Amino acid sequence: MTIRIGIIGYGNLGRGVECAIKNNPDTELVAVFTRRPPETVKILTETAKVYHIDEAKKMKDDIDVMILCGGSATDLPVQTPEFAEIFNVVDSFDTHAKIPEHFAKVDAAAKKSGKVAAISVGWDPGMFSINRLYGNALLPDGKDYTFWGKGISQGHSDAIRRIDGVKNAKQYTVPVDEAVNAVRNGENPELTTRDKHTRVCYVVAEDGADKARIENEIKTMPNYFADYNTIVNFISEEELIRDHSGMPHGGVVIRSGNTGWNGETKHTIEYSLKLESNPEFTSMVLVAFARAVVRMNNEGVSGCKTVFDIPPAYLSAKSGEELRATLL
Amino acid sequence: MTIRIGIIGYGNLGRGVECAIKNNPDTELVAVFTRRPPETVKILTETAKVYHIDEAKKMKDDIDVMILCGGSATDLPVQTPEFAEIFNVVDSFDTHAKIPEHFAKVDAAAKKSGKVAAISVGWDPGMFSINRLYGNALLPDGKDYTFWGKGISQGHSDAIRRIDGVKNAKQYTVPVDEAVNAVRNGENPELTTRDKHTRVCYVVAEDGADKARIENEIKTMPNYFADYNTIVNFISEEELIRDHSGMPHGGVVIRSGNTGWNGETKHTIEYSLKLESNPEFTSMVLVAFARAVVRMNNEGVSGCKTVFDIPPAYLSAKSGEELRATLL
Repeated sequence: MTIRIGIIGYGNLGRGVECAIKNNPDTELVAVFTRRPPETVKILTETAKVYHIDEAKKMKDDIDVMILCGGSATDLPVQTPEFAEIFNVVDSFDTHAKIPEHFAKVDAAAKKSGKVAAISVGWDPGMFSINRLYGNALLPDGKDYTFWGKGISQGHSDAIRRIDGVKNAKQYTVPVDEAVNAVRNGENPELTTRDKHTRVCYVVAEDGADKARIENEIKTMPNYFADYNTIVNFISEEELIRDHSGMPHGGVVIRSGNTGWNGETKHTIEYSLKLESNPEFTSMVLVAFARAVVRMNNEGVSGCKTVFDIPPAYLSAKSGEELRATLL
Repeated sequence: MTIRIGIIGYGNLGRGVECAIKNNPDTELVAVFTRRPPETVKILTETAKVYHIDEAKKMKDDIDVMILCGGSATDLPVQTPEFAEIFNVVDSFDTHAKIPEHFAKVDAAAKKSGKVAAISVGWDPGMFSINRLYGNALLPDGKDYTFWGKGISQGHSDAIRRIDGVKNAKQYTVPVDEAVNAVRNGENPELTTRDKHTRVCYVVAEDGADKARIENEIKTMPNYFADYNTIVNFISEEELIRDHSGMPHGGVVIRSGNTGWNGETKHTIEYSLKLESNPEFTSMVLVAFARAVVRMNNEGVSGCKTVFDIPPAYLSAKSGEELRATLL
């Protein structure tokens, strides 16, 4: 049985989900829903349609699960509960501090409709969270470390672009090798924000702009840069486009901990991702969890779920028998 | 509510489980069951008892879950179905080829009793399997690699010890760095058995034994060594005891794969374990899954489960709310 999927929002993530559906033969893209005039949105899938988002609710019987590809700041807090009243849904809500509140709203909506909603699906929150949880459960006497990068941070790139005299900018979050290695060696270091990540900026200045002032404004910007070692490189717009147009990301979750009668034995668990495209990989995670959501709902489950609540087998298109014979 | 655990079999794994229970404050060791005369078995937990294995079935109401710590060759194929008729059980059955058959027998027993049985729990099968599954589900267009080591292989050490003129021996399985790095770089290499692992042997020869013959017998031994590059080091018994008495192990599961409309984007997912003690870490996994098994049974679930079927949250002593607020 093919899983019929709808995409709400067609930015980088929406396009990634479209590709992810192509890469999962048991899934099918039915339609993309957009706030823009539908005729202005060109998609890749010839068999799918583009509709205005207001049309979505009419397609209740044509879509098994909606994948919400809007932003966490303003789109998802409204859209996920709204669509969970009608559809099985998956989102990638990533404002960590507001997850409990988002969960409660989505859970109420999904319980009312008898649908399943999976929130905060992706790699962090998502696969990194799963690995933090397994790590904590297997080594309760231990310590967690999460490092991000090397990868582009959209929020930090935007913050630089808002500075007067900046034409364009990209910011890479880069884990500090010494810190990662100390953790890998089981040294359980206490690490400050500055110890863990470096921020490397590539900035295109406007003609005649004061570069020293721009560099200083970046390095002293509270929350974004002041607590980090920050490196600012001024480059040409051509160089920025040529060398920094991708959206690579990744990172590593490490749990180190002790076992034994007196905690005398050390172990290290490490999970790492190297991603050439952050939105494309996030999309692969979204589609795998979309499969799980549909399966759970078919079994009579309803309500809001996170990656913690979903058995690994539900993400796979293979049967339990096949999985036991080939991957166990 | 404390989870009351029984241990069946008190070798390296049974002792590891005893330590793991101490490291999980929501669990309690009730009793160890042994085939040896109980009075000859000394355990570490002052509040727990040692009984003959024939007494186990009388303790139906005192034990929430039995952790079976026997061997996969002859103990578990009999014991797991037998005890699943009375108790929730967890085992670490690791004969990959016979898992489907073991699953079927245990499933029938557990369904009959209304209990939950988790089989093949540990790190491989176990955590490595989970990571193979997540990797396959997230990157369906990709390739799996599992490397084991550096670590002691009990089976290979035993095989060397059976050679005439060998007094004692330890064998390390060591992944080949070049192979691991090629996989990490996303080169998707085709690797033979010999390309992936080297076997490093430390052998204590009996006085006057023909070392050249022993070395040749090891290196040409079918299945165990003939298909590998094997290094044989002769050392003294003192050196063997001083330098090779531990049971370290570990390894790495790598999934590399492609996404994008035309598979143009590469990603690599890596999960690795560095363990100072193979049985102690396996035991931590067993106890976390014992917690899950009891919780599932309390919710009315019965039958045989593998690590694929169990939501990550069930392994943790924390509530869903706590997990969402702290680890998601």
